[in-house]
Amino acid sequence: MKGLVYHGPRQVSVETVDDPRIERPQDALVRITTTNICGSDLHMYEGRTSVEAGKVLGHENMGVVVDVGAAVDRIKVGDRVSVPFNIACGACRNCETGWTSFCLRTNPTEGVDGAAYGYANMGPYPGGQAEFLRVPYADFNLLKLPPGREHENDFTMLSDVFPTGYHGTELAGVSPGDSVAVFGAGPVGLMAAHSAFLRGATQVFVVDKEPDRLRLAAAIDATPIDFSKGSAVEQITDATNGRGVDRGVEAVGYQAHDPSGDEQPALVLDNLVEVVRTTGGIGVVGVYMPSDPGAATEQAKQGRIGWEYGSFFTNGQRMGTGQCPVKRYNRQLRDLILAGRARPGWIVSHELPLDEAPTGYQNFDDRVDGWTKVLLHPAAA
Amino acid sequence: MKGLVYHGPRQVSVETVDDPRIERPQDALVRITTTNICGSDLHMYEGRTSVEAGKVLGHENMGVVVDVGAAVDRIKVGDRVSVPFNIACGACRNCETGWTSFCLRTNPTEGVDGAAYGYANMGPYPGGQAEFLRVPYADFNLLKLPPGREHENDFTMLSDVFPTGYHGTELAGVSPGDSVAVFGAGPVGLMAAHSAFLRGATQVFVVDKEPDRLRLAAAIDATPIDFSKGSAVEQITDATNGRGVDRGVEAVGYQAHDPSGDEQPALVLDNLVEVVRTTGGIGVVGVYMPSDPGAATEQAKQGRIGWEYGSFFTNGQRMGTGQCPVKRYNRQLRDLILAGRARPGWIVSHELPLDEAPTGYQNFDDRVDGWTKVLLHPAAA
Amino acid sequence: MKGLVYHGPRQVSVETVDDPRIERPQDALVRITTTNICGSDLHMYEGRTSVEAGKVLGHENMGVVVDVGAAVDRIKVGDRVSVPFNIACGACRNCETGWTSFCLRTNPTEGVDGAAYGYANMGPYPGGQAEFLRVPYADFNLLKLPPGREHENDFTMLSDVFPTGYHGTELAGVSPGDSVAVFGAGPVGLMAAHSAFLRGATQVFVVDKEPDRLRLAAAIDATPIDFSKGSAVEQITDATNGRGVDRGVEAVGYQAHDPSGDEQPALVLDNLVEVVRTTGGIGVVGVYMPSDPGAATEQAKQGRIGWEYGSFFTNGQRMGTGQCPVKRYNRQLRDLILAGRARPGWIVSHELPLDEAPTGYQNFDDRVDGWTKVLLHPAAA
Amino acid sequence: MKGLVYHGPRQVSVETVDDPRIERPQDALVRITTTNICGSDLHMYEGRTSVEAGKVLGHENMGVVVDVGAAVDRIKVGDRVSVPFNIACGACRNCETGWTSFCLRTNPTEGVDGAAYGYANMGPYPGGQAEFLRVPYADFNLLKLPPGREHENDFTMLSDVFPTGYHGTELAGVSPGDSVAVFGAGPVGLMAAHSAFLRGATQVFVVDKEPDRLRLAAAIDATPIDFSKGSAVEQITDATNGRGVDRGVEAVGYQAHDPSGDEQPALVLDNLVEVVRTTGGIGVVGVYMPSDPGAATEQAKQGRIGWEYGSFFTNGQRMGTGQCPVKRYNRQLRDLILAGRARPGWIVSHELPLDEAPTGYQNFDDRVDGWTKVLLHPAAA
Repeated sequence: MKGLVYHGPRQVSVETVDDPRIERPQDALVRITTTNICGSDLHMYEGRTSVEAGKVLGHENMGVVVDVGAAVDRIKVGDRVSVPFNIACGACRNCETGWTSFCLRTNPTEGVDGAAYGYANMGPYPGGQAEFLRVPYADFNLLKLPPGREHENDFTMLSDVFPTGYHGTELAGVSPGDSVAVFGAGPVGLMAAHSAFLRGATQVFVVDKEPDRLRLAAAIDATPIDFSKGSAVEQITDATNGRGVDRGVEAVGYQAHDPSGDEQPALVLDNLVEVVRTTGGIGVVGVYMPSDPGAATEQAKQGRIGWEYGSFFTNGQRMGTGQCPVKRYNRQLRDLILAGRARPGWIVSHELPLDEAPTGYQNFDDRVDGWTKVLLHPAAA
Repeated sequence: MKGLVYHGPRQVSVETVDDPRIERPQDALVRITTTNICGSDLHMYEGRTSVEAGKVLGHENMGVVVDVGAAVDRIKVGDRVSVPFNIACGACRNCETGWTSFCLRTNPTEGVDGAAYGYANMGPYPGGQAEFLRVPYADFNLLKLPPGREHENDFTMLSDVFPTGYHGTELAGVSPGDSVAVFGAGPVGLMAAHSAFLRGATQVFVVDKEPDRLRLAAAIDATPIDFSKGSAVEQITDATNGRGVDRGVEAVGYQAHDPSGDEQPALVLDNLVEVVRTTGGIGVVGVYMPSDPGAATEQAKQGRIGWEYGSFFTNGQRMGTGQCPVKRYNRQLRDLILAGRARPGWIVSHELPLDEAPTGYQNFDDRVDGWTKVLLHPAAA
Repeated sequence: MKGLVYHGPRQVSVETVDDPRIERPQDALVRITTTNICGSDLHMYEGRTSVEAGKVLGHENMGVVVDVGAAVDRIKVGDRVSVPFNIACGACRNCETGWTSFCLRTNPTEGVDGAAYGYANMGPYPGGQAEFLRVPYADFNLLKLPPGREHENDFTMLSDVFPTGYHGTELAGVSPGDSVAVFGAGPVGLMAAHSAFLRGATQVFVVDKEPDRLRLAAAIDATPIDFSKGSAVEQITDATNGRGVDRGVEAVGYQAHDPSGDEQPALVLDNLVEVVRTTGGIGVVGVYMPSDPGAATEQAKQGRIGWEYGSFFTNGQRMGTGQCPVKRYNRQLRDLILAGRARPGWIVSHELPLDEAPTGYQNFDDRVDGWTKVLLHPAAA
Repeated sequence: MKGLVYHGPRQVSVETVDDPRIERPQDALVRITTTNICGSDLHMYEGRTSVEAGKVLGHENMGVVVDVGAAVDRIKVGDRVSVPFNIACGACRNCETGWTSFCLRTNPTEGVDGAAYGYANMGPYPGGQAEFLRVPYADFNLLKLPPGREHENDFTMLSDVFPTGYHGTELAGVSPGDSVAVFGAGPVGLMAAHSAFLRGATQVFVVDKEPDRLRLAAAIDATPIDFSKGSAVEQITDATNGRGVDRGVEAVGYQAHDPSGDEQPALVLDNLVEVVRTTGGIGVVGVYMPSDPGAATEQAKQGRIGWEYGSFFTNGQRMGTGQCPVKRYNRQLRDLILAGRARPGWIVSHELPLDEAPTGYQNFDDRVDGWTKVLLHPAAA
């Protein structure tokens, strides 16, 4: 089959790779109809991770089941499914308490809990930017969708960015009546803003400097804050009569840049501490790394971020972090899409056949204006 | 009346000060029977804060009501009461949601939420290391105790350290069946350990290097970990079959020292990130400061702590922080004392008349062996 | 001043009554701008309660503060305020944990926790269907509103029906992605439906038989279910592929009637047990009474309702009940109104001067078509 | 192999039955070392259910794995395991949210969610009062125990009664500082009392009239209340200064009897409503049935219980019900046993070889004094 293969920094190509097959009785095989390029794919694309050359990328996958193993009795051949990016066993302590993003059994890497498709450090699993994908523990992992092609561009957000944005609001504790500041208007930040409204937020500020992204935020009635035009903290504080917001979501990660373009890993955390009110909650879904050899400072190379921790404490704030356990939210979010109350597909800017994936990577990575979210359709390839 | 007055670094004396009186209709006047020296009093004693000379210290107070204002209708003259260290109005948004430690109205200092008796930066309120104390919003703030002198040394822990230790376990999310690591075996850490067991913990590790404190930990069946004998993280990891603990409590604060005695503000946070399992919770009740002019590094002077944030994120951990809202817990803890199920007074090492308070400060600050918790009894003076 | 006085079953009149005044230092005096007739006022109007003749009715009040006692320091003369129907002390165990509807101190009636204005069995407090109202513990009880007259018909829902409907969804545990069935399309049921959407519900069924009420439900995208056209349970089950709903809200109470008009106090509870899925939650805000001398059966006279409890257990359902603690929700709901995300005033059908209150009572009680919610404006009288 | 077979009311015998075997790749085969007779076995034994003749009974099982299917990769042959009484698939909506007691897929009976071994109406699964047991979805369902025989009598409580008692306290919302009333001192009620203390209760009242059971309650510092000596409500109210308790647990079920021995299905619910304070929580783990042909009244035959619902509402109480999802608690309870903090085996009165099971049934059913909990050891047979 064809797949998008990583060869080195900014080197990816679509080529013929081994066909996946049922390897264990709990497996299913999915023909991919849509798979997205994710912001975190860019960390790998840029060579900022330890991902090995030769790996098929892609963890935002959906499609139709074409084969199942002998132990699969919930999922049937022909089911249209969303594939959570987490590969989870369903039987370990973390899975059974809903933390599928930290499965204790599916990642053979020493000391790492949690596995994913086509991802650095998350186990030996090929990604889904390909024609087919093997899904372990299929009964546990797969989410059923109504048959057909309806809502394809909404449903494709269920494998990662929509639940991940939602997870940010859950970690932050967003509840009805709250005001919220979301830092980062990439797909995850936009989904966090959308989720905040679904949870009853009064006002949602979305901070970025890219006009295309800020326009998408405004399109769902969020309040865009352009931090290239002045301090985000001041703009939000002014807009809230000096009170700041109840909750904050970090959707940027360790590669945060200041307006002049310098990488400032503490910038967003500092902003959140300053703009969230005392006793408020902060959810962090932007990625931070235990070690980052490419970082600017010795401290950052070790994954240490010197942010305003003293103020965090005296503010009595709280913070939740980490990769999203997609299964905890994807059923509910699917039902909100079906009911017409959620429409995460509004962020899609481009749909490409698999063969054009390298173009998608390059334009998304270059932040070419208007390339906000790229979908790949292998089945059309 | 007599009161313990701060004059400058390591200079305190007991002298005659103005008698407090009912100033507003919501006030009560309490004759102090017991008031404790707190570890956070030492920050002020050592001159590490901005507390003004001439201030009466003391925020861990209990006693008997001797007068009430015209608007006090729940509390009566003669009631024996515990006085939470937080001074809270009972009617602002934070108070009404249980965050009395961040009252929006009682602290006139710009930008600071929350007030306390005899404390740096927490409003103009004299402390209770004195014969009498004025208590604002008495109906809201005071906790009634059974009359008499019974359980005096247990009840005196209700004003601060017992609820604060408990708050650490609440922020960490300790629930039945959890294992817990508490860093710091001062009064707050010991109370956190006691609280963890009350909440159903299986095993509680308590990390310190002072033998007297570790003995107190062992006395309640906690597992003492002496970090001067080797890495605390390794000792706990070994004792948990390599898994680490479910929850962690920080009860040390920004003046953490490594075994050689050097101040290392990131040390305890790093240890917690390493020893708490993925998805686990961390409660921070040890004090961190937004600015600390006496700190060793430029970053620490600004209240920035460069801890292992990248690992915190990849571990999917969560953290709650801040001063304890005493009222949220003190009734329940009082009832546990009355039922004979909690006995926080076991940490008391010394009971002194008010006149000997300076000796108490000096010995507690010098960490003289065996001076684990000092009570003052002004009424006996 | 003028007030609406109860004289006996279906006998009310507007007449001159004593002016209220500041009686205690915690009091405020409010000039009423809007006060509503509530469905529970009809229990009294119909003589189905023990309310004493001569009482001024009215517990859904808002207005402007015209005087305050010496201990009131948060609320100022001139503040526009919403008055929660609960009269709460702010300092008892129930108040301090957010259960102002069960205040232990404001109701002198033996064995009853909780007080209200102008209400049977809820203490000696006159109601606010009058020109002025005395508000005890004003700093704790009153919610500030922006000055002026804007949003008057939305804000007037904050004293009771909007928080009460919301409370039904909270007790039921409605969370994003849930489907919900609300029984009763009176003001409280309609507010429950509105609240369910604010909390992220996918679909909300509203069961009633009155066309005007069902139209109001449809106006906010709820799905009206007319139980006079067939079994509500069957209609909802059919509309949910046989699965039923995740959550249910009871907004009818002990005077439930079957389609033929017979009083059937177990009817709605039975329907909820049948239509809510296993492990689902049920919130009951429709009023049930410990004794009801006017009931049809001996059991019902004793407040006993013989509903399908065995199925409730085998379904593993849960149920929360009781009067709403308005303060827990009214700030957030006010902010949702201000943000334009909630608009509870859509149910208002009539606005009358106080003098015409008797007409309002009669038409509302007779369920005259279109009389869905009646506001009184004493200040305009 | 040998198994205990139900033949009709009060007719059971140990006889040779078909050996179980691995039927599906997710199965495991367990050699039973200990299996208990449960109070709910007596409903079947007495002929009060629809259980079919010929069924092997027994749902409280533990033992050693002797075979596994091809899809079992967490559990290994030789593992010592506790078998939760619920048979759960691990992949349906209820399982994935922790409600294994309401699995949507393992029970083929129309309209019933949840399956169990050897139980009326809970699917076609043979019980474990036998030498071997087939366990479906073994990786998901089985809890690993340390090898050997240590703590056998404690661990055997993990399959049902200890988690079920704990579930009662969870549904009631027991938290540190609460007082609790448990109705019923059978094994489940005693486990609820034990669990309440593990969760930090101050005082736990246990209501029964059997002296042997009340002695077991007293042995763990619970306060025994003998309702044959006077009203349980009055005794508890007097012991709590007229306030009643914070939480209540129902561990009796629909066959409740009054002191004179008459069946009164509403009795315990009424007592709970009266003895739990306003806003308090009630957890119901005693079994109620949707229909009960053997009941005394027409209403009770339909599963309707006419309890004091009006007071329940005016008290603002809440109630959770239903069979326990064992997996939600058994790991934590196992760890509490291992840490020496829980010791549920104190209720064991008799240990019998499998052959003597009929004697155990008869004496337990006859409530012969001292027969509080009977264990069967098939491996010793």
